[in-house]
Amino acid sequence: MPEGEEPYTIVWDTENECILYIDQTLLPGRYEQMRCATVDDLARAIRRLEIRGAPALGIAGAMGVALAAVRSRETDLERFLDEVGRAGDLLKGTRPTAVNLAWGIDRVQRKMALTASVAEAKSIAVAEANAIAEEDELTCRRLGGFGEELFPEKCTVLTHCNAGALACRCWGTALGTIRSAIAAGKDVRVIACETRPLNQGSRLTCWELARDGVDVTLIPDSSAAYLMRKGKIDLVVVGADRITQDAVFNKIGTYMHAVTAHHHRIPFYVAAPASTFDLSRREADVTVEERDRSELAYCGDVQLVPDDVNVLNYAFDATPLGLVDAIVTEIGVLRPPYTESFRLLGKNRENRP
Amino acid sequence: MPEGEEPYTIVWDTENECILYIDQTLLPGRYEQMRCATVDDLARAIRRLEIRGAPALGIAGAMGVALAAVRSRETDLERFLDEVGRAGDLLKGTRPTAVNLAWGIDRVQRKMALTASVAEAKSIAVAEANAIAEEDELTCRRLGGFGEELFPEKCTVLTHCNAGALACRCWGTALGTIRSAIAAGKDVRVIACETRPLNQGSRLTCWELARDGVDVTLIPDSSAAYLMRKGKIDLVVVGADRITQDAVFNKIGTYMHAVTAHHHRIPFYVAAPASTFDLSRREADVTVEERDRSELAYCGDVQLVPDDVNVLNYAFDATPLGLVDAIVTEIGVLRPPYTESFRLLGKNRENRP
Repeated sequence: MPEGEEPYTIVWDTENECILYIDQTLLPGRYEQMRCATVDDLARAIRRLEIRGAPALGIAGAMGVALAAVRSRETDLERFLDEVGRAGDLLKGTRPTAVNLAWGIDRVQRKMALTASVAEAKSIAVAEANAIAEEDELTCRRLGGFGEELFPEKCTVLTHCNAGALACRCWGTALGTIRSAIAAGKDVRVIACETRPLNQGSRLTCWELARDGVDVTLIPDSSAAYLMRKGKIDLVVVGADRITQDAVFNKIGTYMHAVTAHHHRIPFYVAAPASTFDLSRREADVTVEERDRSELAYCGDVQLVPDDVNVLNYAFDATPLGLVDAIVTEIGVLRPPYTESFRLLGKNRENRP
Repeated sequence: MPEGEEPYTIVWDTENECILYIDQTLLPGRYEQMRCATVDDLARAIRRLEIRGAPALGIAGAMGVALAAVRSRETDLERFLDEVGRAGDLLKGTRPTAVNLAWGIDRVQRKMALTASVAEAKSIAVAEANAIAEEDELTCRRLGGFGEELFPEKCTVLTHCNAGALACRCWGTALGTIRSAIAAGKDVRVIACETRPLNQGSRLTCWELARDGVDVTLIPDSSAAYLMRKGKIDLVVVGADRITQDAVFNKIGTYMHAVTAHHHRIPFYVAAPASTFDLSRREADVTVEERDRSELAYCGDVQLVPDDVNVLNYAFDATPLGLVDAIVTEIGVLRPPYTESFRLLGKNRENRP
């Protein structure tokens, strides 16, 4: 990491053989790097959304396997791989919807399975986890470059949740296209939806964009349609947690934006690396995570809903591909008909499950 | 008020010549009746949304004029009417978007202007304010009766904000139709949107429906479209703050629901008494209130957005009548084409500005 720069969202500490990450539950108030030395701690951090964002989860999963590997005292290769396999399963179980978590875990485990000794497997695990992290940065920058072309010279873009540097190693996917467009000299303003119930939009997206001097305005999720009607939005760019044959899974509220953008004939774009694609599955095959009612029922110590009232807290929703005008990847911009462009994705993908 | 029942949302205390009201900022945690003895206190209560909801604001405005009247020490009728007029203007300035506030104020002042003495004017002011309150209850119950016919025998209805007993003297407009449908024996479940940023949906709607034993589930505003897509919503019923020739003004997020309901071919109904109509105006003539950024930036002591980030906090939005399938009033159900049915409204309206 270049000296003088801010730490990455998540990074492997080679000297101490542990994970360092920014605890995103503390933002926007506190920007702190935490240390994670066990798989259990990592699982807890992921469940609590201290680490979140699809690409970041991919890196976290990979590094979690590396952590299990370096911490293991097993000397027999087969039992060692079993132990690390169980750690990977534990981590996979923390968040069911995003595909990257399992992808990162599987990729490291596949490399380890090809080794001939525990020592070699440990070394390979760390190297592969770091490779995934470095590739993520390259991926974001390439994706950003392709996405930049979708932006008019002067425009206002709506975004949802946080698909930014905090959702990746750095730079970001949706926010990466915005950063790339600005770097290319375009006049881009951002409208960020707060993204209830965990406010990734207001706490994370607004925070990281403002730090970069980007013109960002916060709105409640429900205002977006009205701003579209008033002609204030030129395009929508969001990230993704999983892309099946027929739908894009992303933070709850994404589908709403897709429908209202369609109604107002505003382009709706998804920015997602190839690792997000899960083309063997259809929408119906994917579990949409439901999270605890407390996320809606309380904000700090303010009670927002009576204790005896039922709460439905879907963390994600699914947008049919028919509402998506383009998907920006690190390989290029995919456009409808997606059955055609997804084939192109398949030919160009390396090291993908 | 029948003995043993809960207090009305707002009521005139004859003995003490002041206003008693439920402070809605304390819900759902505390259900407390507050006393208000000056126009300044009433204005503050309205600005803070201790009293809110279009019909309740109409009653509050009327009672505010009565308060100014009974508190006045003026003996000259003309100066007395001027003083009360200024109090009315102060109250009108507290909330610009809902039409009912000015309507209630004007109605009492018009009656007072016809009197021959200060004593008579004071008496008329109180009587008219009480008449407005009583009519509001009758209006809600009639409106509810007409609205009930729109509900299938078994259905799930989506609602937004609080257009319930707390938004009126009692019973409610949108929630009144739900209560009426249930009273008529229909199996009605409710999905309530929390309604950011002030959470009238989670704090007020969920609270009052749960107290009545209604099956209500809370969702974040952004989930509604997804639930519509999953076939979980049969109809949408919302209230209104103002209805112009061409649009319905209501809590921010209403327009989003109208667009997504339209996309899914789900009926979108507005429940609003005749006092809500402002047919001399068009959408462009109405100011949409913007409120302080703190409502989005903080929740209790939890900071949700960095201090240096711009926030856009529209309290209302406007839905073109083309997206409204019916408007339920105390006179009957109005259907498109609205130019025709609005004429019917004009003929049947009494005591309207």
